Amino acid sequence: MNEVTIKDIAEALKISPSTVSRALSDHPDISESTKKRVINKASSLNYNPNIVAQSLKSNKTKLIGVIVPEIEHSFFASAISGIEEVAYRSGYIIVVCSSEESYDREVVNTNALVSNRAAGLIVSISQTTTNSDHLKAVMKRNIPLVLFDRVIEDLNTSKVIIDDKNSAFNAVNYLIGKGYKDIAHLAGKQEVNICRLRFEGYCKALQDNNIPINENYIFYGGLHEQDGYNSIEQMIKQKNIPEAIFAVNDPVAIGAFKRLREEGFSIPEQIAIVGFSNNPIAEIIEPKLTTVNQPAYEMGRKAAELIINQIKSGESPPKFMTEILDTELIVRESA
Amino acid sequence: MNEVTIKDIAEALKISPSTVSRALSDHPDISESTKKRVINKASSLNYNPNIVAQSLKSNKTKLIGVIVPEIEHSFFASAISGIEEVAYRSGYIIVVCSSEESYDREVVNTNALVSNRAAGLIVSISQTTTNSDHLKAVMKRNIPLVLFDRVIEDLNTSKVIIDDKNSAFNAVNYLIGKGYKDIAHLAGKQEVNICRLRFEGYCKALQDNNIPINENYIFYGGLHEQDGYNSIEQMIKQKNIPEAIFAVNDPVAIGAFKRLREEGFSIPEQIAIVGFSNNPIAEIIEPKLTTVNQPAYEMGRKAAELIINQIKSGESPPKFMTEILDTELIVRESA
Repeated sequence: MNEVTIKDIAEALKISPSTVSRALSDHPDISESTKKRVINKASSLNYNPNIVAQSLKSNKTKLIGVIVPEIEHSFFASAISGIEEVAYRSGYIIVVCSSEESYDREVVNTNALVSNRAAGLIVSISQTTTNSDHLKAVMKRNIPLVLFDRVIEDLNTSKVIIDDKNSAFNAVNYLIGKGYKDIAHLAGKQEVNICRLRFEGYCKALQDNNIPINENYIFYGGLHEQDGYNSIEQMIKQKNIPEAIFAVNDPVAIGAFKRLREEGFSIPEQIAIVGFSNNPIAEIIEPKLTTVNQPAYEMGRKAAELIINQIKSGESPPKFMTEILDTELIVRESA
Repeated sequence: MNEVTIKDIAEALKISPSTVSRALSDHPDISESTKKRVINKASSLNYNPNIVAQSLKSNKTKLIGVIVPEIEHSFFASAISGIEEVAYRSGYIIVVCSSEESYDREVVNTNALVSNRAAGLIVSISQTTTNSDHLKAVMKRNIPLVLFDRVIEDLNTSKVIIDDKNSAFNAVNYLIGKGYKDIAHLAGKQEVNICRLRFEGYCKALQDNNIPINENYIFYGGLHEQDGYNSIEQMIKQKNIPEAIFAVNDPVAIGAFKRLREEGFSIPEQIAIVGFSNNPIAEIIEPKLTTVNQPAYEMGRKAAELIINQIKSGESPPKFMTEILDTELIVRESA
């Protein structure tokens, strides 16, 4: 099929191509009635602007690149959905890449998005990312960059986060208020800032309540269900069972649930569990999981708003913003 | 920052730009040692090819468009993840759009992907899509199109599906084999082909076992948790409680679970439930959900393989393939 061009529309309406072009880009010099005629004709001819050519001319696309550690993880699926919604409303489309928790793959993704001239990048870093050169290179090219959830703290760019330390503090403080003293923590890798902050919140709650921190109650692992399962395995082998568990996130809490249930523990009677993130599963598991609600969809929306504002403003250097979204401890049945 | 060009690499190595260009595109006339030198130099200069310019020249991008009814839905999040994995391995990136179950938005998404010169489109249609003109327009432009899961049967293009009718038949036949006779169906909209086929499978299982189809046991709704919840609400009001329920998908089954539990029904003692899709939640809910396993990630992978093969072959008209992936009834505790 031959492409319909601006020239075709111009000929059909007997006006100049430049008038058509300006009408389509909503130029103030063109009357509303002409704009309407042009848009109707463009629509009836099935005109489809070659955005690739426009992108080359303006060196800007309508693509927003998104890199997440995992697409299937319900927190990230929800955040992507929020990003997509705001992008859609603003005429952008999103390119979604998964780092699969690999630093190398995150670098490849970043380069692919830059090569495809993404107008901006929204990134949540992988568990194995400790170097930020790839992101600094993006910023050097004046490509807007927004980090969300898992961020690199000392990278001076816009961020959408929650107060991980304080949220963890509140969760553990709640357990202490309920009378629990032997509280274990299923912690994540301490190189990942959110894991370190949640660990710090756990420690602070114990310290503020004069409960000594017991190294034997801290189990380091990843952020997945299997990690929670494995930590409980280890706990059982060590015959080192606490009264309560604070898990770094819900998948880890669910893994702990599974292993504890296999072992015949009743929750919360014999052992209480508190998670972090409020995945949909938290409400369905029996007993329902007490957890910190992390507004995934809203974090995605906010990240998209920041990047679109930054793309549109074209400021160099841009104003960097850090948005801290509210969390809430959702008390259910597991603690 | 100034862009590093092929000319810069050529000057640095004192070879011609055309040699550099051919080396970078892995041309057989260029020796391996030259290719290696060029790639090393390109890397050290932080060369980033302007893919937009290349796209304009070749009129092809490395973007694969993906339109799904919902990004957050675990089936689609998993399928997107499978698509992304195959795309990544083949040097493509994926643009993900959500129709939010709206036909209008699906049309807007389709046009946006065409305007951005997506090399191919992978689509699972919305619940409200009954017209396929937007997809026919894609095919007229010789843009490869693969439908998956929710397809338009009479559209002659490549498809990745499961045998919905037979899978539903097996699930209901299993219930009948267990001695259940009064089996309700929480059905989806019959305009959506997978819903119609699952309904047909339900009917066939009853018929083959000489069980009359009872219209009062068929509840039509959507594909979401709330729909299952509402259907049970209606069931309770009508005091029309079956011995078992076959739900069109897992979210609907979960909604049914929730409402039945609120009402104090014990599952499966008083009422059995079988779902469809095998969402991760099916394994975590108590009692664990018996359901049909639908290989979401594999369906995504297969759709990506088909589209990339079709893009690469460049055949016009292309060979259309229908891939039917295997399902399996996973017997757990709810039936």
